[in-house]
Amino acid sequence: MKIIKITDQVSIKRSIEAGTAQQTATVKTIISDVRQRGDGAIREYTEKLDHVQLDSFSITKKEIEEAYNQVDSQFVSIVKEAAENIRSFHEKQLRPSWMTTEENGTILGQKITALDSVGVYVPGGTAAYPSSVLMNVIPAKVAGVKRIVMVSPPDGKGNLPATVLVAAMEAGVKEIYKVGGAQAIAALAYGTESIAPVDKITGPGNIYVALAKREVYGDVAIDMIAGPSEIAILADETARADEIAADLLSQAEHDTRACSVLVTTSMKLAEAVAQEVEKQLTVLPRKEIASQSIADYGAIYVAESTDEAVETINQLAPEHLEIMTENAMELLGKIRHAGAIFIGRYSSEPVGDYFAGPNHVLPTNGTARFSSPLNVDDFQKKSSVIIYSKKALEDHGKKIAEFARNEGLEAHARAVEIRLRGSN
Amino acid sequence: MKIIKITDQVSIKRSIEAGTAQQTATVKTIISDVRQRGDGAIREYTEKLDHVQLDSFSITKKEIEEAYNQVDSQFVSIVKEAAENIRSFHEKQLRPSWMTTEENGTILGQKITALDSVGVYVPGGTAAYPSSVLMNVIPAKVAGVKRIVMVSPPDGKGNLPATVLVAAMEAGVKEIYKVGGAQAIAALAYGTESIAPVDKITGPGNIYVALAKREVYGDVAIDMIAGPSEIAILADETARADEIAADLLSQAEHDTRACSVLVTTSMKLAEAVAQEVEKQLTVLPRKEIASQSIADYGAIYVAESTDEAVETINQLAPEHLEIMTENAMELLGKIRHAGAIFIGRYSSEPVGDYFAGPNHVLPTNGTARFSSPLNVDDFQKKSSVIIYSKKALEDHGKKIAEFARNEGLEAHARAVEIRLRGSN
Repeated sequence: MKIIKITDQVSIKRSIEAGTAQQTATVKTIISDVRQRGDGAIREYTEKLDHVQLDSFSITKKEIEEAYNQVDSQFVSIVKEAAENIRSFHEKQLRPSWMTTEENGTILGQKITALDSVGVYVPGGTAAYPSSVLMNVIPAKVAGVKRIVMVSPPDGKGNLPATVLVAAMEAGVKEIYKVGGAQAIAALAYGTESIAPVDKITGPGNIYVALAKREVYGDVAIDMIAGPSEIAILADETARADEIAADLLSQAEHDTRACSVLVTTSMKLAEAVAQEVEKQLTVLPRKEIASQSIADYGAIYVAESTDEAVETINQLAPEHLEIMTENAMELLGKIRHAGAIFIGRYSSEPVGDYFAGPNHVLPTNGTARFSSPLNVDDFQKKSSVIIYSKKALEDHGKKIAEFARNEGLEAHARAVEIRLRGSN
Repeated sequence: MKIIKITDQVSIKRSIEAGTAQQTATVKTIISDVRQRGDGAIREYTEKLDHVQLDSFSITKKEIEEAYNQVDSQFVSIVKEAAENIRSFHEKQLRPSWMTTEENGTILGQKITALDSVGVYVPGGTAAYPSSVLMNVIPAKVAGVKRIVMVSPPDGKGNLPATVLVAAMEAGVKEIYKVGGAQAIAALAYGTESIAPVDKITGPGNIYVALAKREVYGDVAIDMIAGPSEIAILADETARADEIAADLLSQAEHDTRACSVLVTTSMKLAEAVAQEVEKQLTVLPRKEIASQSIADYGAIYVAESTDEAVETINQLAPEHLEIMTENAMELLGKIRHAGAIFIGRYSSEPVGDYFAGPNHVLPTNGTARFSSPLNVDDFQKKSSVIIYSKKALEDHGKKIAEFARNEGLEAHARAVEIRLRGSN
């Protein structure tokens, strides 16, 4: 793993898939096809891309029962406990509607309302990620969304992974379709005969899913366009090299394009971590992916001071940040940009991936500068409430009319003045 | 104004400018040009599109002084009072960071941090909208954003409107550039020699500005792609036709593509409002714009029951909603989708445009289904905080490792287990 002394500005190399013109064109074709021909188009694309013929896309009660039979009961109970932790954390994000009252009769407020419907995309392919189902569905459920739809591409036999179905049930999903890719995003955005449209689409996916989400953005809301996973670890000489190495590798094993970075004030630690990474890599099942990722996107930055190290973290704005320093809590206030912050030796990043409760859907690619972990606010919206009394309008109406006239909007001024005249 | 009896699903005709392929290509060229050549490109586009040669884009202290000299002092004091109301409302949206503690030592939390920097676009052209400056800047300021940049296209003499500059000062902007169009959005997103980049761009603009915001979305955050202004009024026979007509026209005068709709249970009111609209139109300065807008996008829907009327409102998800019915407060809980809700006879919509305090930047085009008025949350982001103790990891580590292995991520499991082994 390369060790780099921080000189000035640090930028980590990140891999963003923008999609080729060909891929974008393909996605546009699929979306317009699904808009025009609905279920028929879905069926064709599923046959062509997922290599399976489906009459109905709906998951049946029987398929759910079979899923519970297939999954180890101990795993089900871990999923239940994780779901409960996630629910409990996200419930604390709930906010009440509020209002203020004034003596002249004015009432102003903010009304919070859940979205009517949300679609959650769950990627298919080689691995099954029940944790992703929990993390996307539970905040929507806690927010009060009445209709939560899950879509995921079927395997060659027309099935979804049992653990994914179990997680969906435990999270409270009641509507599941075996549809994937850009065609699933199009169905969620615009609806088909068998799939009613939703107001927002969340969840990760491959480049076609990402491009399709970008395409429908505006007609429906989307969560984000996620990039490869990232971790930055801020550590000093009090941290253990073997634990840091293990955490770096836990990101690296996700994807050859994942990004794992250590920022430290200790050259001794830097060297020890570099050695440990090599050592642990040799015995890792996914060592090919992880070693490619470490070679291409891994780095150890050595800073001259803690302040410089913290500033480097803020420049990186990492998805995951671990702080393993003597005075970790003191640094928390200085961290401006990070999706999730794990503090101390025992807060290894996988704790947050599965179990602790905070969301694992986090802003990647430096977007922690302006984005948040997926949370309850993402599934609610606000409406302003304005109640002016006769007295309030008498007090302020002339000023409002003058402001309107200054902007050249006479009808605005008159709408106020007609009340002032007519109010007796 | 056409009167339509509600039969089944109601959809209002809305005008969305998607931009032509030509416009999209132009915007892409401008953005890539600004990224490559910085200030030089800005200078060229300003000369070409705004017809003025500028050496420096910065607004000077002297220009600010001149603006205050030009603007009527009574108007300045109205701007100050409006700014204070807006500030006061948005301060109530502020939320604290929070944490939870458990007996086993676990601490979970959510840390709220302001964005570092925000760019506010203020459109140029024939009219000056100081209210738009207040509504975009003040929430950012309240959120704690340190650097707020305003950009706006200069007129043919290289100036910005005096009222816009005064509003910017009263809102607390310290950095203003005379740059407009797609070139301004590119400068804000990627930076030039004289304009440092920002993390988020807000504010309305023409189709080129909208396309440019869509183009840079992801690299920076944006507020929304706003469509033409809309009002829906829900009224019964207790409401006054002249006041309703005045409010409909206050939307209609904005833009020929603005949308003004009345939904009522009273055919008598429907007819009276249609007549009043015609009458008031004849004496309106912007009657050409307003009558075109009413003809193309105006409608009066007559519902059979209050419930049907409310459901129609929810289907429309209007930007502005006025409720003028006998039992208006009772209906508030049934309204699921609306940007801002004005209740009662004296809450004419312009009250909210300028003065009351809630934001006038609101979701248009039905996006109130999933979007909110511009608010303090838009200028802050959250970071999750996870602190696991030794005890917490001992309690839950095995379950976390099992979840990771179930998803095929061995390095995740090992990152947890290395602590369990090494924790003595």
